[in-house]
Amino acid sequence: MLVVMEKNASDKDVDHVCEVITQMGYQARPMPGQQRIAIGVVGNRNPVEQSRLLGLPGVKEAIPVSKPYKLVSREFKSTDTIVELPNGAMIGGPHACLIGGPCSVESKEQVTEVAEVVAKAGGRILRGGAYKPRTSPYAFQGHGHDALRMMSEAAKQFGLATVSEAINESTAEEVAEYIDIIQIGARNMQNYALLKKVGSMTKPVMLKRGMAATIEEWLLAAEYILDAGNTQVILCERGIRSFDKTTRNVLDIAAIPLVQGLSHLPVVADPSHGTGVREMVVPMAKAAMAAGAHGVIVETHPRPEVALSDGHQALLPEAFIALGKAMEAAAMVGGRRLQHSQNRAN
Amino acid sequence: MLVVMEKNASDKDVDHVCEVITQMGYQARPMPGQQRIAIGVVGNRNPVEQSRLLGLPGVKEAIPVSKPYKLVSREFKSTDTIVELPNGAMIGGPHACLIGGPCSVESKEQVTEVAEVVAKAGGRILRGGAYKPRTSPYAFQGHGHDALRMMSEAAKQFGLATVSEAINESTAEEVAEYIDIIQIGARNMQNYALLKKVGSMTKPVMLKRGMAATIEEWLLAAEYILDAGNTQVILCERGIRSFDKTTRNVLDIAAIPLVQGLSHLPVVADPSHGTGVREMVVPMAKAAMAAGAHGVIVETHPRPEVALSDGHQALLPEAFIALGKAMEAAAMVGGRRLQHSQNRAN
Amino acid sequence: MLVVMEKNASDKDVDHVCEVITQMGYQARPMPGQQRIAIGVVGNRNPVEQSRLLGLPGVKEAIPVSKPYKLVSREFKSTDTIVELPNGAMIGGPHACLIGGPCSVESKEQVTEVAEVVAKAGGRILRGGAYKPRTSPYAFQGHGHDALRMMSEAAKQFGLATVSEAINESTAEEVAEYIDIIQIGARNMQNYALLKKVGSMTKPVMLKRGMAATIEEWLLAAEYILDAGNTQVILCERGIRSFDKTTRNVLDIAAIPLVQGLSHLPVVADPSHGTGVREMVVPMAKAAMAAGAHGVIVETHPRPEVALSDGHQALLPEAFIALGKAMEAAAMVGGRRLQHSQNRAN
Amino acid sequence: MLVVMEKNASDKDVDHVCEVITQMGYQARPMPGQQRIAIGVVGNRNPVEQSRLLGLPGVKEAIPVSKPYKLVSREFKSTDTIVELPNGAMIGGPHACLIGGPCSVESKEQVTEVAEVVAKAGGRILRGGAYKPRTSPYAFQGHGHDALRMMSEAAKQFGLATVSEAINESTAEEVAEYIDIIQIGARNMQNYALLKKVGSMTKPVMLKRGMAATIEEWLLAAEYILDAGNTQVILCERGIRSFDKTTRNVLDIAAIPLVQGLSHLPVVADPSHGTGVREMVVPMAKAAMAAGAHGVIVETHPRPEVALSDGHQALLPEAFIALGKAMEAAAMVGGRRLQHSQNRAN
Repeated sequence: MLVVMEKNASDKDVDHVCEVITQMGYQARPMPGQQRIAIGVVGNRNPVEQSRLLGLPGVKEAIPVSKPYKLVSREFKSTDTIVELPNGAMIGGPHACLIGGPCSVESKEQVTEVAEVVAKAGGRILRGGAYKPRTSPYAFQGHGHDALRMMSEAAKQFGLATVSEAINESTAEEVAEYIDIIQIGARNMQNYALLKKVGSMTKPVMLKRGMAATIEEWLLAAEYILDAGNTQVILCERGIRSFDKTTRNVLDIAAIPLVQGLSHLPVVADPSHGTGVREMVVPMAKAAMAAGAHGVIVETHPRPEVALSDGHQALLPEAFIALGKAMEAAAMVGGRRLQHSQNRAN
Repeated sequence: MLVVMEKNASDKDVDHVCEVITQMGYQARPMPGQQRIAIGVVGNRNPVEQSRLLGLPGVKEAIPVSKPYKLVSREFKSTDTIVELPNGAMIGGPHACLIGGPCSVESKEQVTEVAEVVAKAGGRILRGGAYKPRTSPYAFQGHGHDALRMMSEAAKQFGLATVSEAINESTAEEVAEYIDIIQIGARNMQNYALLKKVGSMTKPVMLKRGMAATIEEWLLAAEYILDAGNTQVILCERGIRSFDKTTRNVLDIAAIPLVQGLSHLPVVADPSHGTGVREMVVPMAKAAMAAGAHGVIVETHPRPEVALSDGHQALLPEAFIALGKAMEAAAMVGGRRLQHSQNRAN
Repeated sequence: MLVVMEKNASDKDVDHVCEVITQMGYQARPMPGQQRIAIGVVGNRNPVEQSRLLGLPGVKEAIPVSKPYKLVSREFKSTDTIVELPNGAMIGGPHACLIGGPCSVESKEQVTEVAEVVAKAGGRILRGGAYKPRTSPYAFQGHGHDALRMMSEAAKQFGLATVSEAINESTAEEVAEYIDIIQIGARNMQNYALLKKVGSMTKPVMLKRGMAATIEEWLLAAEYILDAGNTQVILCERGIRSFDKTTRNVLDIAAIPLVQGLSHLPVVADPSHGTGVREMVVPMAKAAMAAGAHGVIVETHPRPEVALSDGHQALLPEAFIALGKAMEAAAMVGGRRLQHSQNRAN
Repeated sequence: MLVVMEKNASDKDVDHVCEVITQMGYQARPMPGQQRIAIGVVGNRNPVEQSRLLGLPGVKEAIPVSKPYKLVSREFKSTDTIVELPNGAMIGGPHACLIGGPCSVESKEQVTEVAEVVAKAGGRILRGGAYKPRTSPYAFQGHGHDALRMMSEAAKQFGLATVSEAINESTAEEVAEYIDIIQIGARNMQNYALLKKVGSMTKPVMLKRGMAATIEEWLLAAEYILDAGNTQVILCERGIRSFDKTTRNVLDIAAIPLVQGLSHLPVVADPSHGTGVREMVVPMAKAAMAAGAHGVIVETHPRPEVALSDGHQALLPEAFIALGKAMEAAAMVGGRRLQHSQNRAN
């Protein structure tokens, strides 16, 4: 922490700031400059609560020097975290994989049909919504418990692992009963009660980035989960909000290598929600892999025109299978090895 | 809903879209233009699920014409909703009021001292955090149940009503036991499980706007609460995220008159979180009132330099009392009548 | 400037950074901490070019401590700059005024009619577009030279000063010939060739904030003008871009007191472009004044439905005159004294 | 254009809107719905000026159906525009290429050294700044005319074409005299005087996207150039502004395939300015190519630590040459064929 004083701060102001720093248990290092004095705060093991210093007379700014997260950082753990799933699929380090499925699980037939497509495409994880956080109270909210059961059965039939979203503490328990990876959606990225809950559980967690979350806030949300005891966290970039409404969101591809530099956790991308436009999904999936993503999570539906949600961004089965083929070269450009399901079609 | 077809869409595409619209229970009205055909969807009572139409061959865009919210809209209820509190304070319609208090309730002494200041300034509602959603797991998370009790007692002593935040379903019950208004924070604006919960309760709810929420999403979040049965909702503009980090957020003052035009619900502003800078709080409180806000919610602390959170944006007691005085003229410019506590100092 | 080193930076890296700082003519002050070393750069009179230090081995970040602007800052000149116009109108310090007129000057009759309305409302400055920067090449681009002449004559008839936009170096000369204040539009805020040109002239300049410009970039754009010799600069907040398209822009009211704290230059607000919605103009004009603006610039048109540009955001004459009346109380809330034209209707 | 009426609009309001539409030379098609009436505007060959309709009584919204640009659109010209340069390099359609060079041309030695590196890496175009638009008036502004000459000579020596920025109408002439592609920088994307100027010239233009420009505004800026007669336009995505300051900008990779769908013009990406961080340049260059970019423009400098501008984002020569090698596979993933210089090192 560097405390920058106002140009006209008095010696008394400077002394007072130094005293408060000492009271807080740190050492103060005044650093007089041509224009103003700055005071370094040293000796802190954890981030300094800057709000206390900002309130003092003569203080202009307090600039943090250390990062506020710890357990998720590469400085804390330099080797990549690799999340391994019951079906042998691995995400993290050199391993990448394709995750696919419908926005919502609609019926046993639908989810089984999609699971077969995902396996054929070489995918190793089936996604599907059972509890859906919808912007409108009048939109379809998911088939809940039944959907989890149907999805789990369909996945087993094709050797796939599963990921599905929990929307509060009680659904987290339910999802964990049937599903391999508990997803925390973008709207709940800062639902700290839910983060603490899944942090206390043992199933891996896929943490989506909030639509206006900074990289630091996203990593701090993951820190909540690790701090509560669960180290099996997969980060998922799913697009951020911008001024341009041409696409639903701006998929922040740069966040992938950036976070991989700052953290040991695996990072995947969601080009379906990240663009909201079917035609953009494949180019953006390739781009994410070329930038080094540990995988992509893509929506596919056999009959998008009757989908209960987000049909317009779902790939048709043949397009999803084509994507599966294109993934290999794209992953190689990004320095990852794509894992395949054994059921992959040739 | 207006479905815009691609320039090169075939007659068959157009016919197919019309059939699907009919299957959905609406009427299709094709409207041929110079460049392309557009198809009007009429006969809907609720918003049309556009995703189904977007997926059809030849469809370029589907443009919603009706708003997706209903119960919160002025078209549904043209008269202003006025929320009345146990101490007689009213928010909405012509009535505005000043809400003040510490970021966090820290001790019985602190909250009592602040309650006295709020009453002296003419404020009618005491704010204070018991459960704090903090970006970092290592930051102070609030004194919980004890804080609610202390705050409730302090408020009663000075004839004030109270508002405090709930962070999940169980804390909502707890807050409702002691406090007059349950606050939903910006980070939980789209925590639909929590919205449904407070919608099923009878205490008024203050719903803060999410930091990247559009006006429409904010009103839809309120719609969740009204749809679940609770009509006593106060909206709170607290600043949105922008590209400029000079202030913590951009307080979107225009959202106040805008929402008042679209909805019958009262709207207050939070210039403390909306700017994050003590010097900006008073001018922005005045601006919000001049634009027609139904009140402002402002942080004040007797000794900001030892505050456990957000001390740098808290007004000192004398500044808060001065704000109370300035509020009257500002409210009048905005066309509102400021309510005063009986304990107001002269 | 504070140079923060990587955790694993070597002593050699630190020494090298210190050497480079010395070569740049400054002094290096290493400041060892618990986790990492930071190096203070002192002795600089102007901002340090951080890019050179960022490139060195072991350097993590370079954090500027001084602001990069000088002539526009309050630290350089503590007293408010007051711009005085030929008709006696003053903007800055305690003085505020109302500026009004059509988006585009369309005809002698139209601009004369509007000038009369502006004077009646108590306005002291007539705005009007002669050269229009339009997003589309097919939109009306302004009547140019003729418009400047017509506007100048209309203004004189009612004792008003004038403001009109220049879009490149040659139109700046032309505008200066007829008009009292040369406006630089939002899209040209970083057109440095144009800034240098108007900086070399003597007429006052109204510098609109770019739609995605930070406060710092805006002040640096003004610094270009002052650095070239022209100190008569009025800043104009006109709305920034956000993720929500409900209004055309977000009028950043907080920028007004913020900039007034950082700079001695006057700041006005443009609620017409800042919202793009007629109904929002009056509440936002009041809000800007209550926050301490030195004036507002508002579009008005006698027959908006036939306006050649932006008719939907223009106030009707009676609404503009009503705004003129409401301004007085709003200015007082913001601590300014509103100047009136002598022709003001009662 | 679809004009949506207020719920309570009268028959008279509807008739009036229909009359105005007829006066404007179009046909009105009223479309009564359950909740409100909407009126289709048909028969327009160019975009309808919506502002005129928005101002009418009873009108709620006016929703454009056609796009406001024409000459740049794929609907106007379905085949890809391919820009061919004097050295045989081609950009557009199936052809992609690598563009590299220093931020600023600093000396004959520096630019010659860099030109050699670019050629060795397989690059075909040399970039370099002669006129630099800098945020601060105190930052290095470029060596101007001399830089153009030095750069042109260095490029010829290694068989490279050239691109350099013009900052106003007079520098556009100068740049065109020495350089193959005139660059319009992000800050000047809506400097319409400059767009018209380069539109009247014959040299190809590289048009950078403004940092807060929507896709539509960017295409309309290009429309200015085509409308003025110059069809040789290359679009360049260089990052947009977001709320997160971790990277300098957010490189909007999705804009690449999106624009390629809407327009026939080639699109390249600038990962150097798009991220502002050296470590991110290579992954983002790969991502852009995998998404189908027609090339990337990347900064490289032999000794970034003494660069006069932007040294921290410049690749070292060896990294640039490695990028040249990696480009081939990345371009193939994106469906492009990478062109190589004949001087490429193996």
